[in-house]
Amino acid sequence: MQSHPPAAPGRLTLAEYIHGIRSGNTPVLSRAITLMESQRPTDQALAEALVEALLPFSGHAFRLAITGVPGVGKSTFIEALGQHVTNVAGKKIAVLTIDPSSQRTHGSILGDKTRMDTLTRNPRAFIRPSASGEALNGVAHGTREAMVLCEAAGYEVIVIETVGIGQLEAGVRSMVDFFILLLLAGAGDELQGIKKGILEMADALVLTKADGDNLSRIRQAKTDLLHALHLFPLPDSGWKVPVLTTSALTGEGIADVWQQAEHYRAHTQRSGFFDLQREHQAEAWFAEAVQRLIYEQINRSANLKQQQEQMNALVKSKKLSAPSAARQLMKNVYPHDRE
Amino acid sequence: MQSHPPAAPGRLTLAEYIHGIRSGNTPVLSRAITLMESQRPTDQALAEALVEALLPFSGHAFRLAITGVPGVGKSTFIEALGQHVTNVAGKKIAVLTIDPSSQRTHGSILGDKTRMDTLTRNPRAFIRPSASGEALNGVAHGTREAMVLCEAAGYEVIVIETVGIGQLEAGVRSMVDFFILLLLAGAGDELQGIKKGILEMADALVLTKADGDNLSRIRQAKTDLLHALHLFPLPDSGWKVPVLTTSALTGEGIADVWQQAEHYRAHTQRSGFFDLQREHQAEAWFAEAVQRLIYEQINRSANLKQQQEQMNALVKSKKLSAPSAARQLMKNVYPHDRE
Repeated sequence: MQSHPPAAPGRLTLAEYIHGIRSGNTPVLSRAITLMESQRPTDQALAEALVEALLPFSGHAFRLAITGVPGVGKSTFIEALGQHVTNVAGKKIAVLTIDPSSQRTHGSILGDKTRMDTLTRNPRAFIRPSASGEALNGVAHGTREAMVLCEAAGYEVIVIETVGIGQLEAGVRSMVDFFILLLLAGAGDELQGIKKGILEMADALVLTKADGDNLSRIRQAKTDLLHALHLFPLPDSGWKVPVLTTSALTGEGIADVWQQAEHYRAHTQRSGFFDLQREHQAEAWFAEAVQRLIYEQINRSANLKQQQEQMNALVKSKKLSAPSAARQLMKNVYPHDRE
Repeated sequence: MQSHPPAAPGRLTLAEYIHGIRSGNTPVLSRAITLMESQRPTDQALAEALVEALLPFSGHAFRLAITGVPGVGKSTFIEALGQHVTNVAGKKIAVLTIDPSSQRTHGSILGDKTRMDTLTRNPRAFIRPSASGEALNGVAHGTREAMVLCEAAGYEVIVIETVGIGQLEAGVRSMVDFFILLLLAGAGDELQGIKKGILEMADALVLTKADGDNLSRIRQAKTDLLHALHLFPLPDSGWKVPVLTTSALTGEGIADVWQQAEHYRAHTQRSGFFDLQREHQAEAWFAEAVQRLIYEQINRSANLKQQQEQMNALVKSKKLSAPSAARQLMKNVYPHDRE
């Protein structure tokens, strides 16, 4: 822990945050996540000290990502999964949703609150919509930190929800243990609309809306997907990616998804892949944090930001090579550096 | 252009490099690429000045990447394609091979020279094996710069060859216009051995060894791959990824591959995707260059390097959070920075 400057107005003290989070006070947890997302320099020391203090209580949750195009039924699926995890598996679940479209309006906050109606009123669930803000490497600012906080608050399952349009998924992949891609059954084009590259991240494919008239299409889609997956390489985990089907109407398939996720956890914990992936993710977090510091320094200064944009434009138009542009920019970022 | 310190022994002057490269002197081009790959601080100003001077003469070549697992026949394929490009299409080709396994022994240098026998003696071809050295973001140090040099030397087609084992391909994808994945026909497992994620980068899949007894397996593999591709999303370019077949024995299919590559170029130039991708690549080059400067600064100092490793270990073992570790490290990298 380190000393820190006076907090911005509306902030709690470090001790208040720690006590609130450790005792399961969800409004305090929410306010602490807001602190993590803050770009204000005055918030940073407090945010860092808080993460530092809670780090020993983190890491024990099972971390999942759930993604899919709009209309696939993400909220309904997460609500059903959340009810299963809390009521049947008896665990506490935290859902962090990231919506790049809501950067300005924060429109998703109201939207998600109403969309996940039952889960919102479930005392074992915590739902925190979050605008993705200025993402670096596609990772929402503060999401890793928010996970640490949720884990320290006692949540045993963390779900990161993203929209599946390809901006954030690579970053999210580097934060979670298990990545679920939701798909709609269509006429042989199950993956149209899914951004290139997302499929290869998935640890499970889940066809939603497996009910009524849709059942024959679902069966065909499942066959096609299994056939396609057969051609593709096994993931690094050695895990065979399953194709599952669920219905929000009948509730069928939700227990299967959870069982597969648990199988995956057991399988990769036995093989050592689980811990190895966590270690790689910690390294990625560190590398991101270094980059973020530099970009923050550039963004704090209107002059440097303008320079960076100018350099970028010069590189794009081939008027300056990237190495020269980088050297000139960094000289101005750290003017005292002697070389 | 900027002033620079005295060159390391064995180096030419800036003017000698420029003149040699612009007049098509391949030994000078080779030595200039060695300069680009150098990690020596004394070489950097010269390397940067050279790239800067040649930048206006670059960018006009068609840039291809060719990858595939060992045994797929990469050298044979590149040799055949190179002969076609030089003799039939009448263009000059430069082949830069990156082999991560040769970091220490430089074993690939001799290997490739003998493997691409005909192309080596072709006056319109330039082959430059290069150890990948310390790669950052999976991009071999100096490869982008080597491309600039080859283009300034008048090469109209640049081929980057990698081993397809997944370490470098993402970085290489961000350097080229067209990405070719070579595959062996097998029993429904064409992509086993190919690292997860590489398939999604491909603009063309090419089945090699389409001759003799292998032909029925090739036909089946082609059908399977087309079926699988049909399920997957169109790439951002809007380009429909073709599955092609080639034989080094009969020479069949090589002209098709080149024709498809040319179609791709025409298609994406019309749509604007070609230039857009080049712009994104220039931005990526700039971002990489900024990172590289910082990592070089860390690596130059044994003390800082040790600190970085310590911080990384602390983050991995959850003794320190990534943001705190990053801040502590950066304070030591740039001790004069006031915050």
